[in-house]
Amino acid sequence: MKTQHVALIAASLIAGAAVAAAPQVHWQALPTVAPAPADNPTTPARVELGKMLFFDPRLSSTGTVSCFSCHNVMEGGDDHRPVSIGVEAQRGGRNAPTVWNAAFLSVQFWDGRAPTLEEQAKGPPANPVEMGMKSLTTEIERIRLIPGYAPYFHQAFGPGDVITMDNAAKAIAAYERTLITPGSAYDRYVQGDHTALTPEQVRGMQDFASLGCAGCHQGPNFSGPPLPTGTGFFVKFPIYTNNPYVRKYDLESDLGRYDVTHQVADKHVWRVPGLRNLVYTAPYMHNGSVKTLPEAVRVMGATQLNRTLSEARVRDITAFLTALTGPFPDQTMPRLPPTPGDLLGR
Amino acid sequence: MKTQHVALIAASLIAGAAVAAAPQVHWQALPTVAPAPADNPTTPARVELGKMLFFDPRLSSTGTVSCFSCHNVMEGGDDHRPVSIGVEAQRGGRNAPTVWNAAFLSVQFWDGRAPTLEEQAKGPPANPVEMGMKSLTTEIERIRLIPGYAPYFHQAFGPGDVITMDNAAKAIAAYERTLITPGSAYDRYVQGDHTALTPEQVRGMQDFASLGCAGCHQGPNFSGPPLPTGTGFFVKFPIYTNNPYVRKYDLESDLGRYDVTHQVADKHVWRVPGLRNLVYTAPYMHNGSVKTLPEAVRVMGATQLNRTLSEARVRDITAFLTALTGPFPDQTMPRLPPTPGDLLGR
Repeated sequence: MKTQHVALIAASLIAGAAVAAAPQVHWQALPTVAPAPADNPTTPARVELGKMLFFDPRLSSTGTVSCFSCHNVMEGGDDHRPVSIGVEAQRGGRNAPTVWNAAFLSVQFWDGRAPTLEEQAKGPPANPVEMGMKSLTTEIERIRLIPGYAPYFHQAFGPGDVITMDNAAKAIAAYERTLITPGSAYDRYVQGDHTALTPEQVRGMQDFASLGCAGCHQGPNFSGPPLPTGTGFFVKFPIYTNNPYVRKYDLESDLGRYDVTHQVADKHVWRVPGLRNLVYTAPYMHNGSVKTLPEAVRVMGATQLNRTLSEARVRDITAFLTALTGPFPDQTMPRLPPTPGDLLGR
Repeated sequence: MKTQHVALIAASLIAGAAVAAAPQVHWQALPTVAPAPADNPTTPARVELGKMLFFDPRLSSTGTVSCFSCHNVMEGGDDHRPVSIGVEAQRGGRNAPTVWNAAFLSVQFWDGRAPTLEEQAKGPPANPVEMGMKSLTTEIERIRLIPGYAPYFHQAFGPGDVITMDNAAKAIAAYERTLITPGSAYDRYVQGDHTALTPEQVRGMQDFASLGCAGCHQGPNFSGPPLPTGTGFFVKFPIYTNNPYVRKYDLESDLGRYDVTHQVADKHVWRVPGLRNLVYTAPYMHNGSVKTLPEAVRVMGATQLNRTLSEARVRDITAFLTALTGPFPDQTMPRLPPTPGDLLGR
């Protein structure tokens, strides 16, 4: 399955309309359960296996890099670095997106090149600068060499030849669908608890709507309108380049979705990222070049809305964004099965 | 505080005596609480802070290597590699010892160069091939730059200037004192449950005593007799070199404790490691050269007892050693405080 392009009104038009007349933003709380595809229900057995695989560094060539390494669910679901470090100290090209609430994105990766969490999970293992396995075949072979995994695969997927990469990816996706953070101050506010936000946060919320931020960052995850899985919500970034930020933060050297589609119209086009838990996910932007949240607000105002935001507005919007934080579910650590001593040498 | 040398009867004499007449081995179960020094009681607040620090990769120069990276408490408390990989893909020189039950060792590191868990915790952060911070001063400065840690330090250590490297190390040590595995099949057996071991495991236990393994691997952690903290139980390895294993597994190129003391008598002398949870800690020996547990038994028989063990005995002893596994306490994941976006760049 390839990702689809949503027929998108040019983001600059959305922004323009928003400035002219603040749209009626339909504020939505985050659902308390993430949607799952029909062929991969979020069963406890799949979640448990997926959590084990997510935390298992033996899924990388050196035995040192797991999903968790760059998607630290004890923090913001990312790795607090501009770009991640994979096996043999190799640097990736883009900032690790948070895994928190990725279950609510209709396409995965910054450029939307994977339609589902299941497909996303098959990306890093065989990426030479990430987990560095030769292929997904090598990857599942290694998992098979750890005998303790077999009962967990059978528990999750039944008898027979179920230790497959597809099932490993399904299990990881099932676990990721539990990594959601409903119940933030914002969620409680839009559900009727008007004490949940401070006056500053409420002002920031109003600015967020009236300035047009919510034109793109809409929906319960602030990552766009509801779209079928595999259909991404893409926007150009930066739209406006008449500001110092584009050069300062090197916002144009990565061509974004163009590298996937090779369509000129996709140059500097990106999936709209969600805005939850930004307090935990510095540094910001696809290249991790912007270090603080207020600065990210300034950058977005200039590049997407062609506005220089007042510092009062930056403060208010930043305060609003902090209201999108957590709560993070308590998690127990998985127990990983023992390693055959020659595992990494095979 | 420096580590002390126990006045040690030459290990070859111990082994010789054991072979001549099987000693009455005093089998001991693992205590359910690890001893703690008077100035660092294992309080819940210290354990919680220590767990956070243990899991926090921001304590390394690149933000990618935590204590947990090489001491994976979701597995055997080590990293299933021959030698560990630190920042910038640098390889360490020795096999990562397990952190499980390290609280019962009277000195730390393979060469016993740290007298306590507290002192051990100050080793890896400023080791250039491990966590790679310039110094412990740089390390604690970085911790101070994460504002969310302050309340945890105050909760654990009181008001005032308590965000110090000494206190960080104390907290990590307090957490490590909870990483113990009493209640294994062996423990239940010696506490009177004679169904806890299989006949094969009981035979292996008897062989373990009669052959002399228990001469060095004695006590509840199989790491030696009770000694004051900071006083290590050291033994030469290999003692006997008239076997193929010494060369095959390169057992003599590392001079062991000699590198700490520069005393000729300390060449190839090592702290006796514990034997619990070996099922989880392959590969084996100070250089991680021996890949399976039966082979480790063969090697020890040849190098320490000057015996070629029969395969039946190897099987029985291996079976006994597997009875020293777990149970591992359920653990919740810590929540780590947010990162200032410029943390790693400072």
